[in-house]
Amino acid sequence: MSELKGACIVGQSGGPTSVINASVYGVIDTALKNPNITRVLGAEHGIKGVLNDRLFDMAQEDPAELELLKYTPSSALGSCRYKMADPDVDDTDYKRILEIFKKYDVRYFFYNGGNDSMDTCNKISKYMSRVGYECRVMGVPKTIDNDLAGTDHCPGFASAAKYIATSFMEVSRDSQVYDKGMVTIIECMGRHAGWLTAAAALASVKNDGPDLIYLPEVDFSMEQFVADVKRVYAEKKNCLVAVSEGIHYADGTFVSEAKTSGTDGFGHAQLGGLAARLADVIKAEMGVKVRPIELSLLQRCAAHCASGTDIAESFMSGKTAVEAAVAGATDKMVGFACTRDENGYKCEPKLFDLSLVANTEKKVPLEWINEAHNGVNQGFIDYCLPLIQGETGMVKEDGLPRFVQLKKVFAK
Amino acid sequence: MSELKGACIVGQSGGPTSVINASVYGVIDTALKNPNITRVLGAEHGIKGVLNDRLFDMAQEDPAELELLKYTPSSALGSCRYKMADPDVDDTDYKRILEIFKKYDVRYFFYNGGNDSMDTCNKISKYMSRVGYECRVMGVPKTIDNDLAGTDHCPGFASAAKYIATSFMEVSRDSQVYDKGMVTIIECMGRHAGWLTAAAALASVKNDGPDLIYLPEVDFSMEQFVADVKRVYAEKKNCLVAVSEGIHYADGTFVSEAKTSGTDGFGHAQLGGLAARLADVIKAEMGVKVRPIELSLLQRCAAHCASGTDIAESFMSGKTAVEAAVAGATDKMVGFACTRDENGYKCEPKLFDLSLVANTEKKVPLEWINEAHNGVNQGFIDYCLPLIQGETGMVKEDGLPRFVQLKKVFAK
Repeated sequence: MSELKGACIVGQSGGPTSVINASVYGVIDTALKNPNITRVLGAEHGIKGVLNDRLFDMAQEDPAELELLKYTPSSALGSCRYKMADPDVDDTDYKRILEIFKKYDVRYFFYNGGNDSMDTCNKISKYMSRVGYECRVMGVPKTIDNDLAGTDHCPGFASAAKYIATSFMEVSRDSQVYDKGMVTIIECMGRHAGWLTAAAALASVKNDGPDLIYLPEVDFSMEQFVADVKRVYAEKKNCLVAVSEGIHYADGTFVSEAKTSGTDGFGHAQLGGLAARLADVIKAEMGVKVRPIELSLLQRCAAHCASGTDIAESFMSGKTAVEAAVAGATDKMVGFACTRDENGYKCEPKLFDLSLVANTEKKVPLEWINEAHNGVNQGFIDYCLPLIQGETGMVKEDGLPRFVQLKKVFAK
Repeated sequence: MSELKGACIVGQSGGPTSVINASVYGVIDTALKNPNITRVLGAEHGIKGVLNDRLFDMAQEDPAELELLKYTPSSALGSCRYKMADPDVDDTDYKRILEIFKKYDVRYFFYNGGNDSMDTCNKISKYMSRVGYECRVMGVPKTIDNDLAGTDHCPGFASAAKYIATSFMEVSRDSQVYDKGMVTIIECMGRHAGWLTAAAALASVKNDGPDLIYLPEVDFSMEQFVADVKRVYAEKKNCLVAVSEGIHYADGTFVSEAKTSGTDGFGHAQLGGLAARLADVIKAEMGVKVRPIELSLLQRCAAHCASGTDIAESFMSGKTAVEAAVAGATDKMVGFACTRDENGYKCEPKLFDLSLVANTEKKVPLEWINEAHNGVNQGFIDYCLPLIQGETGMVKEDGLPRFVQLKKVFAK
């Protein structure tokens, strides 16, 4: 592969995570040190920053400050939810991107996001190749949803999983203090894939896990749910339930659907209020005390409870993207190939074709879901537990997190 | 004061906190080592455990395991919400308590709870004194609400405050990633006192705080609220709001009232769903994206984010209760006298008369609330910031908290 010198752009897209900035730091730190990369530009609000020519000159930032990206949640460069048109139908955006790439002599493009962002990467890569502009395009994955195909898991998932499992342990203790009994229903994110909700099961490793877990991979039955809760409550005088926002009836209708309002930029319905709805059903059916809890944004930004493994792997994915691109790779996403055996857990970066990753969703395998469809088995625990090991190196000041403060100097 | 030898009972009451077990550990650890205390009994579910003769023999527990109480949230002995009758009206419970005290030769009673629990303590103390049974009764405070009179602050508050401030910082970052703008409304606990909601302001020390804060100490106006949010949003294209569950209109009606269902054991209305209600109003008035978040139980059990200062002070309050009682004190609550000056923050235990503490509520002083009634000032920050310093010493195993597992052997 020929040597390619030029500037790089790094951008972030989609919902943020606790460690998406660790990935971007992996890109920035590695790119700043690489002799083939002449300039490191950060796109404000993802691809929109490219379209609007709003690019930060990352070399203007203090290196020590930049390192705090590893422990700062959310998308430090700003994110977007912007669906690129099919270039065969409308190539306006692509022409504009090409114009900007030429303006700054951009030869490397790193895009940090979920499956919609991998689709964006793939389209840009194909367009540049078609018009004969040499540019290497790499996807750097992130998603708490853990639903990207190919890779063993996604950066961002493990930190959310660790927060969820920790919170379940704490709420489990809290909800059992009275002798009166209580049903607690905790709603986790995950439209179509139940990885985050399944992560609640990790709390069971320490005997403080949920009694029941409902995932969107299987159909939900309200009758069965009520019967399950009644059975557990009769036994324990208490019941802790983990439920995915995306659970649906056999006909595909979301259980939360009637309360849905609005859609996000990609046309996905915004779900919410499900826990409260299920709580109402249990209250009416059983007359017991019920507490619905929605983990909401907390689960995707709780950097104070991030997984050390996740932070290190997120950094590695960004670093690998730069190194692989400089070595000649393009149109790839950096994923992970992992082994879990008697020698422990091992994770290596691996490149996947963007076209294979874009717009597909990886779900929790059915063989990890129990027969009654209200829990997960040891297969899931063995898969997930290694991912949440290790703690964050978050810097504290005044007893609070010291998050990054970027200068955000626009490139000339 | 004469020397008094005998057994002690320690119990927990009311809603748990992240550090209530640290207080109980202060009692248990100190009592087990004190020669005047012949036996240390833990009451299952607070005063109910005394009435039902369900008392754990704490000497049967492994000392290393007991120490994990310092980092384990929730009430490890079990809690209750049980309002004692006025002994002049109905002394049934008091006679039963006396019977149990005599059975185990109990001469020390330590009760770990909020203001209702201090009332329980006070009534028991007065009854024992009236019937001439020598017994020293000490209140060991806890409450995330921080509403106990006399003491500078309450064990449990600071850890909840630290979690709230940390979560606000994280959500603040998360809610500003898009260029589209969003209003985020986070609901904190606190029926009549706004301490927890005010704690969100600590995040402002790191420039990631809420734009608006609404406390129950002042009347709420929906018109003013909408105007406030519109003004901030027009300026920043974003708005982060902290709101107490107990905000009320000028006529005293809770803003959340129409959604209220049920009451807790003391007759307090159970509040909730307020953030969602306010979000609906903003959505209707402004047509922007709004995200309501309720911190719910998470804020009172997030031991993984507890304040090191709070843990140490909670332990100290339990320890002081035992030492003071053995030295002759009775009918007192262990509170804190604190100084904050150029020499830093200093906290000393101080005894308060139970009769002064019971059933009164300390609110956020009006001079710490801004004129517009939508924020707090530096006075509150100076008061609160020292309390959240230091981190938990929580032991981790499998990447998750290692909480205490008690054997709970019943006393013979």
